[in-house]
Parts: sequence; structure tokens; C-alpha cells
Amino acid sequence: MAGDGSDQRALQYEQTLMYGRYTQELGVYAKEEAARLRESGQRRSVTERSRTLDLLEYDKGRCAKCRICTVRCQKFLISRVGEDWIFLILLGLVMALVSWVVDFCIAICLQAQKWMYGGLDSNVFLQYLAWVTYPVVLITFSAGFTQILAPQAVGSGIPEMKTILRGVVLKEYLTFKTFVAKVIGLTCALGSGMPLGKEGPFVHIASLCAALLSKFMSLFGGIYENESRNIEMLAAACAVGVGCCFAAPIGGVLFSIEVTSTFFAVRNYWRGFFAATFSAFIFRVLAVWNRDEETITALFKTRFRLDFPFDLQELPAFAVIGIASGFGGALFVYLNRLIVQFIRKQKAINRFLMKKRLLYPALVTLIISTLTFPPGFGQFMAGRLTQKESLVTLLDNRTWAKQGIAEEFEYFSNSQAWKHPQLNVFVTLVLFIVMKFWMSALATTIPVPCGAFMPVFVIGAAFGRLVGESMAAWFPDGINTDGTIYPIVPGGYAVVGAAALSGAVTHTVSTAVIVFELTGQISHILPVMIAVILANAVAQSLQPSLYDSIIRIKKLPYLPELGWGHHEKYNIRVEDIMVRDVRYITLNCCYRDLHNVLLTGHLKTLALVESAESMILLGSIERAQLQSLLSQQLGRSRRMEYIRERADAEKKRLSVVSSLGSEDGSQRASQEVRFQISTEESSFSPTRPASQKPLKPALKRSSVVERPTDLPTSPHDNSGIALKNLFCASPDAEGLEDDGDVEDDMTIREIAEWEEKQLDEQVNFNNCKIDPAPFQLVERTSLHKTHTIFSLLGLDHAYVTSIGRLIGVVSLKELRKAIEGSVTVKGVKVRPPLASFRDSGTSSSENEATELHKLWDRHKSMSLPREPTPSESDEKSQ
Amino acid sequence: MAGDGSDQRALQYEQTLMYGRYTQELGVYAKEEAARLRESGQRRSVTERSRTLDLLEYDKGRCAKCRICTVRCQKFLISRVGEDWIFLILLGLVMALVSWVVDFCIAICLQAQKWMYGGLDSNVFLQYLAWVTYPVVLITFSAGFTQILAPQAVGSGIPEMKTILRGVVLKEYLTFKTFVAKVIGLTCALGSGMPLGKEGPFVHIASLCAALLSKFMSLFGGIYENESRNIEMLAAACAVGVGCCFAAPIGGVLFSIEVTSTFFAVRNYWRGFFAATFSAFIFRVLAVWNRDEETITALFKTRFRLDFPFDLQELPAFAVIGIASGFGGALFVYLNRLIVQFIRKQKAINRFLMKKRLLYPALVTLIISTLTFPPGFGQFMAGRLTQKESLVTLLDNRTWAKQGIAEEFEYFSNSQAWKHPQLNVFVTLVLFIVMKFWMSALATTIPVPCGAFMPVFVIGAAFGRLVGESMAAWFPDGINTDGTIYPIVPGGYAVVGAAALSGAVTHTVSTAVIVFELTGQISHILPVMIAVILANAVAQSLQPSLYDSIIRIKKLPYLPELGWGHHEKYNIRVEDIMVRDVRYITLNCCYRDLHNVLLTGHLKTLALVESAESMILLGSIERAQLQSLLSQQLGRSRRMEYIRERADAEKKRLSVVSSLGSEDGSQRASQEVRFQISTEESSFSPTRPASQKPLKPALKRSSVVERPTDLPTSPHDNSGIALKNLFCASPDAEGLEDDGDVEDDMTIREIAEWEEKQLDEQVNFNNCKIDPAPFQLVERTSLHKTHTIFSLLGLDHAYVTSIGRLIGVVSLKELRKAIEGSVTVKGVKVRPPLASFRDSGTSSSENEATELHKLWDRHKSMSLPREPTPSESDEKSQ
Repeated sequence: MAGDGSDQRALQYEQTLMYGRYTQELGVYAKEEAARLRESGQRRSVTERSRTLDLLEYDKGRCAKCRICTVRCQKFLISRVGEDWIFLILLGLVMALVSWVVDFCIAICLQAQKWMYGGLDSNVFLQYLAWVTYPVVLITFSAGFTQILAPQAVGSGIPEMKTILRGVVLKEYLTFKTFVAKVIGLTCALGSGMPLGKEGPFVHIASLCAALLSKFMSLFGGIYENESRNIEMLAAACAVGVGCCFAAPIGGVLFSIEVTSTFFAVRNYWRGFFAATFSAFIFRVLAVWNRDEETITALFKTRFRLDFPFDLQELPAFAVIGIASGFGGALFVYLNRLIVQFIRKQKAINRFLMKKRLLYPALVTLIISTLTFPPGFGQFMAGRLTQKESLVTLLDNRTWAKQGIAEEFEYFSNSQAWKHPQLNVFVTLVLFIVMKFWMSALATTIPVPCGAFMPVFVIGAAFGRLVGESMAAWFPDGINTDGTIYPIVPGGYAVVGAAALSGAVTHTVSTAVIVFELTGQISHILPVMIAVILANAVAQSLQPSLYDSIIRIKKLPYLPELGWGHHEKYNIRVEDIMVRDVRYITLNCCYRDLHNVLLTGHLKTLALVESAESMILLGSIERAQLQSLLSQQLGRSRRMEYIRERADAEKKRLSVVSSLGSEDGSQRASQEVRFQISTEESSFSPTRPASQKPLKPALKRSSVVERPTDLPTSPHDNSGIALKNLFCASPDAEGLEDDGDVEDDMTIREIAEWEEKQLDEQVNFNNCKIDPAPFQLVERTSLHKTHTIFSLLGLDHAYVTSIGRLIGVVSLKELRKAIEGSVTVKGVKVRPPLASFRDSGTSSSENEATELHKLWDRHKSMSLPREPTPSESDEKSQ
Repeated sequence: MAGDGSDQRALQYEQTLMYGRYTQELGVYAKEEAARLRESGQRRSVTERSRTLDLLEYDKGRCAKCRICTVRCQKFLISRVGEDWIFLILLGLVMALVSWVVDFCIAICLQAQKWMYGGLDSNVFLQYLAWVTYPVVLITFSAGFTQILAPQAVGSGIPEMKTILRGVVLKEYLTFKTFVAKVIGLTCALGSGMPLGKEGPFVHIASLCAALLSKFMSLFGGIYENESRNIEMLAAACAVGVGCCFAAPIGGVLFSIEVTSTFFAVRNYWRGFFAATFSAFIFRVLAVWNRDEETITALFKTRFRLDFPFDLQELPAFAVIGIASGFGGALFVYLNRLIVQFIRKQKAINRFLMKKRLLYPALVTLIISTLTFPPGFGQFMAGRLTQKESLVTLLDNRTWAKQGIAEEFEYFSNSQAWKHPQLNVFVTLVLFIVMKFWMSALATTIPVPCGAFMPVFVIGAAFGRLVGESMAAWFPDGINTDGTIYPIVPGGYAVVGAAALSGAVTHTVSTAVIVFELTGQISHILPVMIAVILANAVAQSLQPSLYDSIIRIKKLPYLPELGWGHHEKYNIRVEDIMVRDVRYITLNCCYRDLHNVLLTGHLKTLALVESAESMILLGSIERAQLQSLLSQQLGRSRRMEYIRERADAEKKRLSVVSSLGSEDGSQRASQEVRFQISTEESSFSPTRPASQKPLKPALKRSSVVERPTDLPTSPHDNSGIALKNLFCASPDAEGLEDDGDVEDDMTIREIAEWEEKQLDEQVNFNNCKIDPAPFQLVERTSLHKTHTIFSLLGLDHAYVTSIGRLIGVVSLKELRKAIEGSVTVKGVKVRPPLASFRDSGTSSSENEATELHKLWDRHKSMSLPREPTPSESDEKSQ
């Protein structure tokens, strides 16, 4: 019964009871599967035989064998559909097609803009109008479309995927609606020519695709219903997303791992490679078939010389790029967050923007497109180039500024955009970098499906190019002193810069691999690696990654990473951070205790202990289960039963005494009305503990985690019955019909009395789903280990036990606090709030001995008739 | 006390009590650390002040500030030494130097051989002698040297590292001796020119380096003593090993992950990249400084054209290479295992070879070097080329067989070796592949430090070249039909073949990345990826990887991987595979129970439950702890105490009655002697449960896991006291001295009586180290999940509990059996031995309800005075 409703579970509920519930579902699943298989096996054999016979009769004259063969093939194929590789190939294929179609549409959109702009070159004002209106319309459409269809499609999607892969269920993020909204929204957003990327959204689209494909495939085989398999497939899908976006299978797999996982199963690695390679292959083959390319090559092919890619003496320059990119990346993340927070905080602006939701995107687009208008300010920053064109020109292997005199250089087609008659190439580049930097940070806050990777990549390339051109101007004949002149290749610097800045923003090293795959050249491997690592080192010590930053802004459940080289984490122990005042229920508690526990706390699961004296942990129970227990106990159907019983007793009495009249009729009516209201107020049913709220985009949402709890927190004295009625919610229809013959003739006082009596009964846990093995830690587990276990198993909380006894609980919140207390954002190491070094007076073995003594005592006292142990309070406070 | 001895723990002991012991040690560690810090802080402040004063007085006239500054810098540097990056840089630096020096020495050795061979060209026999003797001497020296110094250095080292990273302690594998043996042995082995590789050994050497460096650095800071940090550093070291061997940082990191880990922490990723990049950088910079190279480029640089690397129509040929490589890789692994097993099985050969340990290496070397003798058979298989030279020529971008006529092609220097006046290039290549194939499989069984990666890589390259040359002969003008002639590049095929075959043998995808980094060109990314994935798909379904094969041969503890697409694993549950007959001890058991449990089982840890009725799991206790408890109870010191007490009582009696004489003197003497013998027989102390046996190389060892258990398995009736005396082992010296004044005057019968009495006492667990939170699963956890948890946390066993009650135990053995039952080596899926689908009659919720009922009953009966519940046997058998 409860299992059926499990699909409806909301955020975070899935993970709390991971072991118990998960395996329970598996048990149910296995049984269902067995029944299904048995049935379908019988059915199939019957239908097949009859079909074969039909065929034989029908095609008597023609090649019947051929038909039978086809049927067999079909059967074989359907049986094979359950295999992973079929799924991965399909996923790769679909994603390659999606990627190619999106790219094609974007190219058409951009061409249309160019054509409009080019056609109106007689009138600058008309030109401006065309240049500005086009993106504004597209972005507004994109924002409106996603807003209406699926607000979950807004933004990058990588933060959400990270959260989902951590085990949190964000169901609304993986629906068909979201898929449509994301694909169309993304196409329009990128078609507008704004500095937005497609990488992040593609990770989300691929995951959506995998989830939908899984659903579709589950029509053929039951294996697709397995949750843990779906998580594995989602991990592969993330790799496919990056892989088919950049035609970079290796980089895609690595990037997706770095960005979405904390712990990675190496066996999933292969899935990712397989799907991503297939996807990238199809993606590039489509380009060849479309006659865009002659053969399969890299997306942004470079042609640097192979024999002497760079000199050893150039390495300091590369290192400088890395360090500067690190600062730049941190600044970008900071700026992005600042803009979001600024817009949120400014109440006036916020209210205005919220009312007219499409105004903000339109406004931002207007500003950005005005500034890039080529005859206007755009002429100083190569405004007429699209993102792709800019990148191609930036990675060019010719030097723009030979000997410092930009005029000498002959510009080709697009490269000419970088040349301004009055301005130096350096000034153009600096302007480009500065303008694009804030524009990208601003543009990525627009509520449309968009990523930040590509804009950052282009800015990084421009920065690298700037350094490279400077170096080329400084050393016109190259640095090498051995005779042969090897001029400096500024394009190589651009490659290094692109990898370093994108690595710094996303906190990944695999951007290096992506860069090699994008350019098709690996000759600059060492400079790229050095720059990326330096950039990461700087950026990681200053700011969280862009995706973590968004996770925090969106208040998604997260677990911060342990920093690099923070030793304190080895010395903090669970006992320093655990909550000692654990809410628990005992096996022999009465409903009143249950009621009180539910009133005072908001935890989603409660510990079940043997007794308050022994505190032996038996399992944990979901809050919803307890609420349903309580509602059953105090529910209308039970009360009706009581009334019926009482009526029966009454009848017997009535056979002696005559009726007294119906004075309590009005009373009953008001009661009925009150009941209905209270039922509406608390519309949750036991199996659906919280109504499922879709998460809203960053700009509009204040909180996910702190959503109203199911229980009002009002003091529990003032509203006796009303509050209890909250638990008596949703009496099922049958129950009502059942008791239709009995009249609810109890007065409020009577009800209260009855309820009081009911509350004193002992709880019967028989129909309650208990997680029999919640995760346990010991007091001395280090923070480091705890973090590892939490992220490995995707836990939400863990109980701290000592020789079977429950002594505390650690939840994600405490862990987060502890880590952030010891590892602050600024890179300064603060001492953890709770001292980590104990006085060395009490040795651990002594401690253990005393505890065991106590357990021993307890055990002895247990065999006597129950009595509260005096040492219990000591134990708790120790 | 027990903590001090923990270094001495043997194989597998470390992981069984992972949580409890680990955290306990941390607790002790933190306290010690606190004390140390406090002390050293005081001491330091005092000494510093005095030193500063000294300096000020001493250098009054000179720049005292300068000196003070130096002291401060020193202090700062020492405090920084604990940082991870310092460690990683040092590790990278050391390994780069080692790699470079080893390469340099190997080059000199190979040059020396060439020089000798070249100088003697007047006489073929002398030439032959020189050609053959040189490698035989080197290999024999290498084998002898490693045999004497550290037999652990033999072989690749990757299997051992995989085992170590899984949490198993193989201490002897990470000592300085092993380091020296491995480096010198490897240099000599590779210097001989045999088809051996340096990759595997370098992974081991880097790990050794990290372990030694850790030990060295722990002189400065306590953080290096942390075990979990050391594991992280070992993971990084594996990456460094591959990285500095091939100057391939990215491929190195990925390869080491794929080869050594099951689950990988993404935060370690960065460590690996950092160290591997630094190491690769230094390694290549050394080459530049040594004037070997002009600048930093790839190790085996290729010069394929960039604009049109391959045609789309060539892809089927690449796929064929992939599939053929898959079969070839599986064959290689099979052949390698076959040779080892053949030599082991042949008793006669074996005995002979074992006696003269150096004969086998010498014999193998003789055969191989005879066959490669250039004027002999070697002329048909390019025998005069070293491995490196062969690879360079194979990756050449010129076509050898233009238009099918090999003679037309002008050969350069080394490429000429492939040309034979009478033979076709194709025949040479085929001979090379076939001969090298079995030679490599044979050579890697020689007990010297050696890897198989490089030989396989070269064979793969030759195979790819063969296909490429065939394609070039078939399509002399290229395949493209669009007008422009793009001739086929056989070198590209060689690259693909090399990646595919090495990927198939090692079951990795990252060989693709290594290939790009080795050649410095990424243009063939898609063919390489396709071939590698196909090769992996084929090889993985036929054979385990080479490293897993060696793990099985060496009988190292391992957990098989879950296959790809085996659905049954989702349907098998823990209850299908768990051992229901768990050995447990209860909290109130007497020593006799302890004794019986220790006698009947061989488990390394025992479950501690509250009572036999409740079966509530309280924790687990190590066998050694129990043995020490028992030995304390029955120990000599305790008996002496008893005797003293008895003597006191006797004295009182004696004050009344006169002495009866000393008739029991001889009795006592014999008793003393017996005691000494039995003490020597059972030489284990409680804290050192098994003497530490170094693992021996594959050829000579039969078993690691099945080493003799600590307890003799003789039937426990025949030797009453002697057996008990086994537990009374190692009475500490002080105890003996203490009781020196009391005479041991008990007869054997008296002792037996006394012991019987002692055994009936209740166990006092006070001084016993209990793991308070052993890992727990529930019955319905799937095999898939169990495997994940076991490999994530490196568990050895886990208890299966149901609402606090212990109902079973699963160890690595059961898990291994279950997985191998469902996933056989041949790729045929066998149905698991225990049925996975239950009859769907009993629903899970019903089941739970009954269980809770029982618990409920139990609980009620618990509050009464203790009495055995009748339903207990039902519970157990259910």
C-alpha cells in the first residue's frame, strides 16, 4: 500500500531511509517481476505459437520461412532490448541527433540575424533596430516558453544533476515537458547570439533523454524500473551530454565525472565512454553527411606546428595565464552570484521584475545587444562575430600583432573584426575581455536554458590570445637562442587561456582534455595542464565552483567538498558535531508520546529504540509513517467504530429506557463542517507526506529545504482537538461510506475525552514500515570519514551509536556546518567551533571500559523487572 | 597497549574492524597529537627565544636580521611540509628523476649490447655469444638480486597495488628494500632487451616512493601517520607512476584509476593530476636539459597530416582492428596464465626450477634472445631493433608497401630492419607479431620486476601497421572519391592497434588517452576510441584483465567486478547468500562459551549480541581480543594469584597443622617445563594474531588466504589442559617476576579443576576492544548494492540484521561466490545457485508485521525474568 505511493515522494524523502526502503522496494519488485515473468512467459508462448501458425497458413504459397525468421528476429531483438549497450547506443544516437539539430537551428537563427543586419546597411537606425529586436524577441520567447511549459528547464541543469546523482529526487526535473522546454528554449536562447553556452543544458537534456528512454524501454523489459540502474544510466547520460556537445568523448566523460560526482564507480566509466564515443561519432558523421566537412575532424581545428610547439622559456607566461585565470574564474563566480543576490535583495526591482517576468530577460538582452552593435561600441570589441566565429579567430595560428604594429598584418575575413582602424589589437582584445566578462556573468542569470561554459571558454581564449600577442610583440623572433627561429604562436596561448579559465570557473581539470579534443591538437599538453592546475588551485581557494555556487543559491541539498590539504578534518570527530538530543520513540511507547514527539520536532525520520533506559537502536521510522499511525488511531473510522460499539451498548440500554430526543443534532452538523475544513487544511495523506512542489528558478525562489513542514509549529496546548484533527486527515472514502449508517453524535468534549483515552494506548507498530538498519557511526569516526561515507552512500543522516545504544545523530546540516566551520570560503582555516583535541587525561580504553560497565549494569538491571536506571541521565550528558 | 601492536597486524586484519578500530586509533592519535603539540609548543617557544637571543648576541656586528629571517623561513617551511602539495611535488620530482635515470641506464645497457654485437661482426658465433650472453647475465642478475633482497619486487606490482588500495595491508610490499630491488631489478631486466615493460613496475615504484616519503615526512608532521591519507596518497602515486613513465599525465591518471580502483573519490583526481603533471613535466624537462630534445614534445612524436587524418570509409578497418585486438588481448591473458599454471603443475620441472631458481629466467632469456639474433631468425622479424626503435618505426607516417611492391620504398635507418631482401614487409610483420606475442607472454612470467604493457603496445602497433599496410596496398590512391587524393596513413592504423591491444589486455579505455599523449597527436581520436571500446567489449567477455588474472594466480584477496549488463545481480538478495549460522557471543556468556566458540570457528571477528534470545547486535570483537580474554582468565598470573590466596589460607591452616613435606616438588618441575614448551608452541600474543608472512612471487606460492589459522583444528576432547594452555600463552615477564615468591604447586588434576571452575565464570568484557558499529545490511539488500558497499568501504564482512537482531553474516567469500556463480568467466550467464525469485505469496509488509510481532513478544518476555522464548528456534530457521 505504502509502496504504491512511493513515486509521489518529495524531495529528500527518498534518501533518508535508503537501505531499508530501497531494499524493501527491491523485494517487492523482485516478486512482482517474478509474477510478471511467469505470466508473460505463458502468454507469450501461446501468442507466439498462434502467430506462427497464422503466418504459416497465410503465406502458404510464399516464403513462409522468411516471415518466421523475421518474427524470431523480432523476438530476439526485444529480448536484447534490456541490455545496457542497446540503451547506450540509443541514447547516444538520440543525443547526437538532438545536438546536431540544435546546432543547425542555432546556425540558421544566427544567419538570419546577420542577413537582416546586412540587408539594412543603408540605415543605421533600422540596422540597430534589427540587431536589437531579434535577440530580444528570441530571448523573451525562450524565457516565456520555458516559464509556461516547465520552469525547471531554466539554467544550466548541472547543479540539479549533481543533486540528483547525489541521491536526491527532483522528479520534476526529468519529465518530457522539461525536455521540450529545454531543447526549444535553448535553441532560441543560443540563436539570439547572447553570450550563452550549450554545455550545461546538454548535460540536462541528455539526462532527460536517458530518463525518458528508460521509461520508454521499460515497456519492453522490467530492468528499466530499477532505481540504482537508472542512476548509473544518468551518470552515463551526463557524459553523453558533454560528449555530443563538443564532439569530445573523453573530455566529456571526465568533465561530467568531475562536475557531477563525488565518488565514481569505475564500472560506470566504461558506459560513459561507450555512449559518449558513439554520440560524438554520430554527431560528427552528421556533419560529414551534410557536406559541412570532408571528414571527421575536430570542431575547432587548429594548425599549430608540431615539431616545436613552444619553448621551455615560455612556460612562465603560461603559468601567469593559469594564475590570472584562477583569479578571473573566482571573480566570475562571485560576480554571477552577486548579480543574482542583488536582484533578489532589491525588493522594489524584484517585485517589478517578478510581476513582469519577461521584462528582466528583455532588459538584459537589450543592454547586451546594444553594446555589441557593430557600428556602435561593438566595433571596438569584435561585436559582429558570433561566439563560434570569435573562437575560431582566436585560435588562429597566425600572429595578429607582428612586431607590435598591428597594421602590417593582413587580416582575413572574420579576423578583420579584431582590427579597428584607430585602435590597436591589444585594446580590442582588452575591451572584448572586459565587456564579455560582465556580459556573460549577467547573461547567465537570465531565466532561460543556458550554460556558462562556452562564454567563459571564449573569454579565456581571448585572454590567452592577449598574453600571446604581447609575447609575440615582445619577442618577435621567438625566445629560443639556439639559432633556428621559432616565432611564438599566440594561438597556443589562446588554447591555454581557454582551458585555464573554464577550468577555474568549473573547478575541473578535464577542460584540458576538452580543449585537446576541440582543437584536435595535443601538442600544448604540458602548458595547458600547468595552467589548468594553477588556475584550479587559485580558484578553489577563493570561491566555490560555478555549479556549487548555483546549488547554494538555489538552496539545493548539498554537501560541501573537503578542501585540499585541510588537516583539521582528520581531527574533528563525530562526537564533536553530533546532535545529542535525539528525538526517539520507544518500542512500548503510547500514542501520546508519538504525538508529543511529532509536535516538537521536524525531523523526517525518527529513531526507534528498545526503551528509554537501554536506548538500543532498533531502526528508524519515517515521520509520515508515524503520522499515519496516529491518524489511524484517532481517525474518524476508528471513532465511528467506537460510536457503533457504544451505540450497540446504547441500544441494549435503549431497549429498556426510551429515547431522549435529538438535541445534539446541531452539534453534529457543526462538527461535520469543522471536520471538512480541517481535512482541507491538511491535505496530506500518509503516503504523500508533502505536496510535491516543483523547484523554481534561482531568481524567484527563496528556499527549497525550508519549505513549510507538514506539522504546524503552534504551541500544542491551545488547540486540543483541532490539532489532533490534523492527524485525522483524509479519512478514505470507503471508510466514510462504511460508517454511513452510524451517526457521529459525539460532542466535542466527548471527542476530546475519547481522544485522550486513545492517546494513552500503546502504539502498535505492526503495520508500520520500519527501516531496520539505518546507517550507524561511532563517536570517534573522523569528520573526514563521515564525509566520505555520507557522499559515498548519499546519506541524509546517520545515527551515532555506542555498543548498540543510540547516543546521537548527525545530519547533512551538522556535517555541512562542521566542514564550513573549518574550511571557510576565503581559504583561511578557522578552528572548528568544537575543540578537536580532547584533554589527554582520559585514555580511550578507560572510557570504553566505563561505558561497558554501564552497559553491563544496564543489562543486569534489564533482567530485573523494569525500573529506571539512575545512571541514565549521566550517560546522556556525558 | 593493543594500539601499539597494530602495526604488526597481518593481512586482512586491518579491514575487518574498519570503523571501530580505525576511529579508535584516531582518537588515540588525536590525544597524542594534542599532547605532543602542547609539549613541543612550549619547548619550541623556549628554544626559539633562546636561539634568537643567541643569534642576536653572536652576530651583533653583522646582519642579524638576515639570520632571524632565515630561521623564520625554516620554521615556516617546516610547518608547510604537512601540506599535500609539497608532498605531491616531492613525489613527482623524485619519480621523474627515477624514471629518467632508469631510462638513461636502460639506454646505456642497450647501447652496450649493440656496440658489442656490432664490434664482433667478423665472427658470427662470437656475435651470437655476445648477443645471447649479455641479456642472460642481466636477467639472471636481476632475478637473483630481487630474489635475495626482496622477492616482493617481482612482477608488475599493479595487482598488488589494486589489493592494497582495496584496503588489504601487504606491508612488505612498501618497504625500502623492495624499492631498491625493484628499481635495480627493473633497470637490468629492461636493459637486457627482453620484451618487457616498465609501466607496471613504475606504478609500484611510485607507490613505494610515496610510502617511503610519507614515512620520511612524518618526521616533520603528524599528519603523515594517518592511514586514510596514506591511501589517498598511494592512489595519487599510481597516477604518477604511469604519468612519468610515458610523460602522459592525463592518461596516467585515468589508467591508474581504471586499473587500481573500483570506486574513485573525485577529490583524489586532482591530486593525481597535479602530481602526474609535475612529474611528466620534470621528466621531459630533464630530456631537454640533457640536450636529447630541443623542447618538450611527445615521447613517440608522430607527424600525420592534420587536415584529413582518415576517411569515413576507413572506419570498418579500424573496427576490425578493435575486434581482432579484443580476441588477441584475451588470448594473451590466457596464454600468460597458461604458462604460469603449466610450470606450477609440472612437478618435475617445478622442483628442478625451484631448486635452481635462476635457471628458469636464464633459460627463457636464452630462447628468446636466440630467436631474435639478427643474423639468424631475427632478420625475419626486425630482431635487431629495440622495443623503442620498433615502436618509432611502426608509428612512422610513411607507407612501407606502396602499391604492394615493397622494394620501391626507400628505407631509412631503422626502418630498414623491416625490409628483408627475400621477404615481403607483410611476412616480416606477421612473423614479428606472432613471435613477439608468445615471447612477451613468456617473458612476463620471468621472476624479475617487469610489466607487460609496453610489449603488448608494440605488438598492437605492429598489428595495426599490418592492417594499415594492407589497406594502403589495397587502395593505393586512398579511398576518398571526391577528387583529392588522400593516401592511407598506415601509421594511424598502428596507433589504433597499439591502443586497442593494450586496452584489451588491461581492460582499460584510457590507453586511448595514453596513445594520444605518447604520439602527441589526437587526430585519430574517433578510430582509436571505437577500436578500444570494441576491443574491451570482446576481451572483457572472454577473460579477466591481465592484472585480475595475476591477482587470481597469486590468490590475493579480491572482489570480482560486476559484469556489464548482467541483470541477475539486481535480483539476488543478501538473504540468498548470507551465512545464517553466525558464530556469536552473548554479553553474559561464560568463558566456556568463549572457549567453545573459539574452538569451533575460524572467523576473524565474532558478533557480540545482547543475549541468545534477543540476538540484538551490540558490536563485534576480534578473535584475538577474545583469545587474550581467555588467556587472562586461565593465565599463569591468575593461577598464581589463586595459589597465593590458597597458600594464605593454607598458612592459616598450617599455623595449626604442621607441614606434610615436599612431595609435589618433582610434579612442579615437570609442570614448569610443560609450560615453557606450550608457550613456545603458541608464540602469538593477543595483539599479534598471526606472524607476518611476506607474500611470495606467483610462481612459488600456493596460497595467501589459506594460511594456517591461529588455532589448531584438532578435536577438542583429546587434549584438555594442553589446549587450554594454548590460550594461556605469553604470560608477561613482570607477572612471572611478581609471582616469583609463590610456588606453582598445583597438580595437573588440580589445574584442570581450577580451569573448569574458571571457565564457568562470566566473561568480563571491560578490557576488551569492541567495534561498536560493525557494518550492517538488511536481508533484502540486493547483491548489486552489497557489492557496491563492500567495494566502496573495503569491507571484509558485514552482519545482516533485522530490526536490531542479528540474523546472518556475509563475507567477501560468499559475495565472491555469488557473483562468480551468476557471472562466469566464459561470458555465459548461469542462474545463481540460490533462487532469486521468491514465491510471491508472502508480501513483504506481512513479513515485517510478523517479525515485529516476534520482537514485540520478545520484548515483553524480556521484561520478565529471563527465560528462553519458545519462538526463538523458529526465528532462526526462518
